[in-house]
Amino acid sequence: MSEAERSLSLAELAEAVGGQVEGDASLRILGAAGLEDAGEGMLVRVEHPRYLAAALDGPASALLLGPGLGPVHKPCIRVEQVRLAFIRCLELFAPDERQPAGVHPTAVIGPGAQVDPGCSVGPYAVLGRNVKLAGGVVIHAHAVLHDEVEVGPDSVIYPHAVLYARTTLGARVRVHAGAVIGADGYGYTWTGERHHKIPQNGRVRLEDDVEVGANTTIDRATTGETVIGRGTKVDNLVQVAHNVRTGAHCLLVSQVGIAGSAVLGNGVVLAGQTGVKDHVTIGDGVQAGARAGLWGDQPPGALVSGNPARPHREEMRINAALGRLPELLRRVRALEARLANTPEGDAGEQEL
Amino acid sequence: MSEAERSLSLAELAEAVGGQVEGDASLRILGAAGLEDAGEGMLVRVEHPRYLAAALDGPASALLLGPGLGPVHKPCIRVEQVRLAFIRCLELFAPDERQPAGVHPTAVIGPGAQVDPGCSVGPYAVLGRNVKLAGGVVIHAHAVLHDEVEVGPDSVIYPHAVLYARTTLGARVRVHAGAVIGADGYGYTWTGERHHKIPQNGRVRLEDDVEVGANTTIDRATTGETVIGRGTKVDNLVQVAHNVRTGAHCLLVSQVGIAGSAVLGNGVVLAGQTGVKDHVTIGDGVQAGARAGLWGDQPPGALVSGNPARPHREEMRINAALGRLPELLRRVRALEARLANTPEGDAGEQEL
Amino acid sequence: MSEAERSLSLAELAEAVGGQVEGDASLRILGAAGLEDAGEGMLVRVEHPRYLAAALDGPASALLLGPGLGPVHKPCIRVEQVRLAFIRCLELFAPDERQPAGVHPTAVIGPGAQVDPGCSVGPYAVLGRNVKLAGGVVIHAHAVLHDEVEVGPDSVIYPHAVLYARTTLGARVRVHAGAVIGADGYGYTWTGERHHKIPQNGRVRLEDDVEVGANTTIDRATTGETVIGRGTKVDNLVQVAHNVRTGAHCLLVSQVGIAGSAVLGNGVVLAGQTGVKDHVTIGDGVQAGARAGLWGDQPPGALVSGNPARPHREEMRINAALGRLPELLRRVRALEARLANTPEGDAGEQEL
Repeated sequence: MSEAERSLSLAELAEAVGGQVEGDASLRILGAAGLEDAGEGMLVRVEHPRYLAAALDGPASALLLGPGLGPVHKPCIRVEQVRLAFIRCLELFAPDERQPAGVHPTAVIGPGAQVDPGCSVGPYAVLGRNVKLAGGVVIHAHAVLHDEVEVGPDSVIYPHAVLYARTTLGARVRVHAGAVIGADGYGYTWTGERHHKIPQNGRVRLEDDVEVGANTTIDRATTGETVIGRGTKVDNLVQVAHNVRTGAHCLLVSQVGIAGSAVLGNGVVLAGQTGVKDHVTIGDGVQAGARAGLWGDQPPGALVSGNPARPHREEMRINAALGRLPELLRRVRALEARLANTPEGDAGEQEL
Repeated sequence: MSEAERSLSLAELAEAVGGQVEGDASLRILGAAGLEDAGEGMLVRVEHPRYLAAALDGPASALLLGPGLGPVHKPCIRVEQVRLAFIRCLELFAPDERQPAGVHPTAVIGPGAQVDPGCSVGPYAVLGRNVKLAGGVVIHAHAVLHDEVEVGPDSVIYPHAVLYARTTLGARVRVHAGAVIGADGYGYTWTGERHHKIPQNGRVRLEDDVEVGANTTIDRATTGETVIGRGTKVDNLVQVAHNVRTGAHCLLVSQVGIAGSAVLGNGVVLAGQTGVKDHVTIGDGVQAGARAGLWGDQPPGALVSGNPARPHREEMRINAALGRLPELLRRVRALEARLANTPEGDAGEQEL
Repeated sequence: MSEAERSLSLAELAEAVGGQVEGDASLRILGAAGLEDAGEGMLVRVEHPRYLAAALDGPASALLLGPGLGPVHKPCIRVEQVRLAFIRCLELFAPDERQPAGVHPTAVIGPGAQVDPGCSVGPYAVLGRNVKLAGGVVIHAHAVLHDEVEVGPDSVIYPHAVLYARTTLGARVRVHAGAVIGADGYGYTWTGERHHKIPQNGRVRLEDDVEVGANTTIDRATTGETVIGRGTKVDNLVQVAHNVRTGAHCLLVSQVGIAGSAVLGNGVVLAGQTGVKDHVTIGDGVQAGARAGLWGDQPPGALVSGNPARPHREEMRINAALGRLPELLRRVRALEARLANTPEGDAGEQEL
């Protein structure tokens, strides 16, 4: 059944989200969409009164409404928590992108591999020696799992992802296309003549419910493990260096870079393009604004931004003051000139 | 015929670029090169008198000259627009990297796929269900096109590029190796216990003449489309988040990151490593300097730089002033000390 | 033999590192580890007295000790240079990740290819026309080498790496998974209507002992070569644009971006997320701190940081002063107010 053919009645949707129908409960709904993306047959959410008129005037056929809004002339589902109900609708309309179960005949499976019968292994996937796939694992086309990789139940590896040897994944882990997990950490020692490579003998461990974005790289440890904690979500093009450890439920947004042996607590949020210095400790719940540079340890709960990162309020004040810096220079010059004309004479450096 | 064997006479080149030969028109030219890369048999361009002596002394066999230069003792082609003529020469000498037409026997083609007979599909390429390839499309080795992907005429997909389900490409689109188009947008909602994934049901659409660099990632929309506008050129390692929309003819230079739902007008130029905040609007023709951080809307035509981005002139003044900031501190201290010695006494904080 | 089964006696290890055993020389050692990663059977290094107690109390079975430490009650190996000896131990315990020699039956080898019998070519690797692999080369699964690529002896290409046509690699080069070498440089000329692509006819050359990290991109030259010099080590997710040339033994840390035609001398170190402007020259031995922006030429030996990069000491002073900028504004205001109350009257702009 293609996406266009799937539909649910408003009554079915209301039951799924625990809401009440107002209007025609038999109306067929084809999908859930944002206000700007909605077409005929779609359900849109309205959380705030200021979007209500646009939703009513637009092509959407039904509304998902919070408690205070309406009543309205379009069919709607009334719920307590619009955002969560909308996510539930998105789940119901998610396109079916499942891969057929079973091992594709072109997949190469190394000796000693243990592949649960419930797994799906796509075309041209390559599994090394002693790889273990638990039940429900999906390996997409062209993914490469080197020797002794272990993947927990219901994890999904997208095309072209590469798991180097001995990488271990927990349950329900998702690794997007092109991500490289377990490549050598970047370690060399200068001999006086050349950079001598330090062997990278460790591994990477991704705990349960971790998601790794496209083309992200997470390096193996020199010894021991690089660890991404339970429930942590890593965006695209993120770099995680050797021996980094993150706690549970962190968010590492796109293009973040974390240098070697840095330790992140639980619930840390690093916004896009942020960098973290090697060997620093980032406390639980730290939130760093986009493009921050974290050069030192951060206490739990700190909100920081800027490079070098400072408490966010302080950084905001500095940024505001920066815009006045050229003017400040002029004003100090004026003060100096004025004092130079007073009887006491010389007011210091005048060459500014 | 290998690259080394290809040659054109100076007369043939002159005709192709609409120029006049001065000197031996039968001279065989083996390639076009920059001044530093030229060897015997090569044609070099000279746009400015200061490079003329080097071009004449160097090993190049012929020159491409603008109107005001010369006459010279080496054979040359005289043209009005040196730069465009040189690009035409580069096109004539471009190495032949075409892939043979037809579908390689190792390619996996899903049910319902429509592959125009004029396409080339390389070894181990994987096409999902209902994929459509228009005439002249080239799919290189190992590229993966998931279900219902559509590719317009004369587009080229390089090795290891991944197009997730329902991605659509216009005509003459080029997607370089390792680029990932249509992976899940980065969207979660915190339940109080964990980050709950928000389904990403949308798609990515690349319009005509878009080029996407190696290992770049462009995420699918939550609902609706992420759009890269006609003629926009995206460099390597760029991140484009879900629901971003760019206008036509933008330039997104390497390592740029654009956060979710940001909207770019036409002709926007974002230099390398620049970041754009989510949901902001960047007007037509905005140009942002390298490493800029665009935290807010930018009016059409703005030239900005710095982080947070400011009008470029202002940022330059601030940067110049910044270099004098330590000195400014000393000068203010001197002023305070001086005033402290005047009869009025206290000049404020002295602990600096 | 799996990793867990490999072991060496303390005597064997001592001989390998040129050290002296103190204690039971017949003790079997299973691996070398950092202090935090060590378990029973492991050898840990102790360079500094402050870590000695932890090493003795921990589960490690043996110690690698420098000259001034001890004597201790655990078996140990005494060496002059702990760091180098530890690296030697890591090498001895490095897990065996070799791929079997020979060409996998699923590899596609183009016409004219020359593959040394000592090479290993993995499953689904694709080699174009006239590719040359010297002795000892390892091509992992899914790597793609386009036409006329040449790879020097003992080089290793990891899965999913892509070498575009005419790329040349020296001896002992390592290219990690997902790296893309030789994609088109980012060059366009604006015609007044659209960005016209400038053909990228050149190539990339990696000299001996270069290492390239996962998902890094190194673009081919417009004409001539993009060159990574001998012994230079490139981390993950680095961008090297067309016609860049680096000297020998440089370190380019993760997420660095180098714009077109920039030239780096020997021994240059660019820390993470640093950017280098196009066409600038970076002298021998320049070291740039993380997140630096190098907008201009840098003299040999310069230590720089910040954006725009300044001499590191100067940048440190500016950063310290920045934290006091809001206070400085207040102090200047106070000075102005005070002078405004003196008989001379007006002290300039008061609207701050």
